[in-house]
Amino acid sequence: MFDLISKDPHSKARRGRLSTRHGFVDTPVFMPVGTQGTVKAVSPGELELLGAQIILGNTYHLFIRPGLDVMREFGGLHQFSSWQKPILTDSGGFQVFSLARLRKISDEGVHFQSHIDGAPCFIGPREAMQIQACLGSDIAMLFDECPPYPCDRGYAARSLERTLAWAAVCKQEPTPGAKFGIVQGATFADLRRESAEALVSIGFDGYAIGGVSVGEPEHEMMAAIENSEPYLPSNQPRYAMGLGTPAQIVEMVARGVDMFDCVLPTRVARNGTAYTGRGTVNLKNAIHAKAKGPIEEGCQCPACLQFSRGYIRHLLKAEEILGLRLVTLHNLHFYLNLMRRIREAIETGVFQTFRRGFLEAYHSAEGRESDE
Amino acid sequence: MFDLISKDPHSKARRGRLSTRHGFVDTPVFMPVGTQGTVKAVSPGELELLGAQIILGNTYHLFIRPGLDVMREFGGLHQFSSWQKPILTDSGGFQVFSLARLRKISDEGVHFQSHIDGAPCFIGPREAMQIQACLGSDIAMLFDECPPYPCDRGYAARSLERTLAWAAVCKQEPTPGAKFGIVQGATFADLRRESAEALVSIGFDGYAIGGVSVGEPEHEMMAAIENSEPYLPSNQPRYAMGLGTPAQIVEMVARGVDMFDCVLPTRVARNGTAYTGRGTVNLKNAIHAKAKGPIEEGCQCPACLQFSRGYIRHLLKAEEILGLRLVTLHNLHFYLNLMRRIREAIETGVFQTFRRGFLEAYHSAEGRESDE
Repeated sequence: MFDLISKDPHSKARRGRLSTRHGFVDTPVFMPVGTQGTVKAVSPGELELLGAQIILGNTYHLFIRPGLDVMREFGGLHQFSSWQKPILTDSGGFQVFSLARLRKISDEGVHFQSHIDGAPCFIGPREAMQIQACLGSDIAMLFDECPPYPCDRGYAARSLERTLAWAAVCKQEPTPGAKFGIVQGATFADLRRESAEALVSIGFDGYAIGGVSVGEPEHEMMAAIENSEPYLPSNQPRYAMGLGTPAQIVEMVARGVDMFDCVLPTRVARNGTAYTGRGTVNLKNAIHAKAKGPIEEGCQCPACLQFSRGYIRHLLKAEEILGLRLVTLHNLHFYLNLMRRIREAIETGVFQTFRRGFLEAYHSAEGRESDE
Repeated sequence: MFDLISKDPHSKARRGRLSTRHGFVDTPVFMPVGTQGTVKAVSPGELELLGAQIILGNTYHLFIRPGLDVMREFGGLHQFSSWQKPILTDSGGFQVFSLARLRKISDEGVHFQSHIDGAPCFIGPREAMQIQACLGSDIAMLFDECPPYPCDRGYAARSLERTLAWAAVCKQEPTPGAKFGIVQGATFADLRRESAEALVSIGFDGYAIGGVSVGEPEHEMMAAIENSEPYLPSNQPRYAMGLGTPAQIVEMVARGVDMFDCVLPTRVARNGTAYTGRGTVNLKNAIHAKAKGPIEEGCQCPACLQFSRGYIRHLLKAEEILGLRLVTLHNLHFYLNLMRRIREAIETGVFQTFRRGFLEAYHSAEGRESDE
């Protein structure tokens, strides 16, 4: 399902292409997050116009609401949400451990209460794959335990053992699309290696690096990537779960990661924060009140092509839905366009130059809000 | 500024066309309400696709935020909000009397506190016209006092006297577009007549019927129209402010009204209520959970062409922004399409048949939610 098209000679960056039941995905790729069957504040049509090739759905959320009865009736998430391109679904593991109440973990899986109405639920490795099959996922993720940060070695090792046992169960459960294993092992290099090697020996269509984006400092995040990547097959896709900032994504691409998902561009948009090539901008700041220019000069997103910073600031201050939507469109465009630039840079052999230039500009203007 | 194209032989319904600085408006027309410089939950591009020919802006809200400094910098509301078709602005009178705190009314105008930060403000007839000039309004409304319902005759008469004095002041203040007088007089037929005749003798480009949509029963609303319309020039547009339901609009068209604005289609959308030819539907109702059909069979709105009731219900239950947007698009389409059907019916001489058929179907299915 994965073709490696070209490799950067000076780093581990790779240019590839995934094939799924719903079409191709060019990597490195950013996958907008559609937690509840919609990427917050935008429509499927807008996502297509922005060039999104694949989006994420959340097993846990969709299992809780609307539930599998509804999903079966519609024949899966694609038909339900009117998104006809690929969908990757997480396994629910991360959410069960971060959102659900009164969870009780056993070797069979996790008993928990719905975070919405407290209803008792159970998800184990088998159920997680069955739910993802019901969603019609193009890429299903294995059910794993995602240990917190920090996490002591003893717990990390026991948790990893359980996750690997679940991996074997997940492998057996049929799903219509691809299946990705998830490397765990917290901050321990030897556990990361053990996890990667064990998953590869079971054999999946791709491998994610999990247990990141749990509050760890950036150097631990990069270490988790560096301690996992060498043990993953180079002819299969690698996916860093829940990450990251634009600068982190560039750095993880350089470390051999092909796939990313992150709520940042959509979540911070709803606080009025926009991404630009020179870092983030808080559009609620008074300096934008009379600004006639777009969020970012030269940006080709639907918000920048038509609307001024002054108008968008007004919408945000007045808590108008259009404001959230415009900043979300801009931020998603920024991420998706960043990936296009990364792919082009790898293809044309200039990724190292791009990487240096991007990071320099992105970090150059920190604090510029107050200087402008 | 107003051409009367045709008249219904069996009622007072009229088919006309307004010309403004930003283009033509076919009447009878519905004007979506863009209180804070945006029609809630939709974009200017979507409004154009829906066929909106004119939208409303609120003087009071835009005066408070973003304020005239910002508006002057952008050269008016059209440039600020990126809407290039006509804009009608209310005068702020209604909001000053319904929203502002600690207001003190004198013959000069109204001292009040901003409902946002309590800042002391003043709007009088002169200021209201100056603000609307600054907004670049195509149709400016006179500054009036909008008495509550119910209202005793003494107060209604005194209030009307003040409103008429303000009308003379408004007449003198230059604005770039048209100016509409507002007929007041509460529920008193003689005051309505006095108000209409006095305004007409001063002379404006069109006339609104105000003091409706203030909590009065429907028969009082219709009486206010019937008691005002005969005294308004037939060759000028008539506008019923803040009204109404689809059925009420049809009835007011039959009573000679040409222009309407109402927050209903956008406001109720945000509660999950959709308009259909057979009345309203509460999309949050569990009966829609597995419904694969559109909000309304045959509807050509962007929501109905692409999305199911089941999906929209899920979005509404999950409080996703896309849900509010889709129902808003549907409801605005319903209103705008109703006006297209009304115009066509008048043009082709079948308005009475249309009126009967529409009202029968619209009222036929009340309570159908529980029957389905």
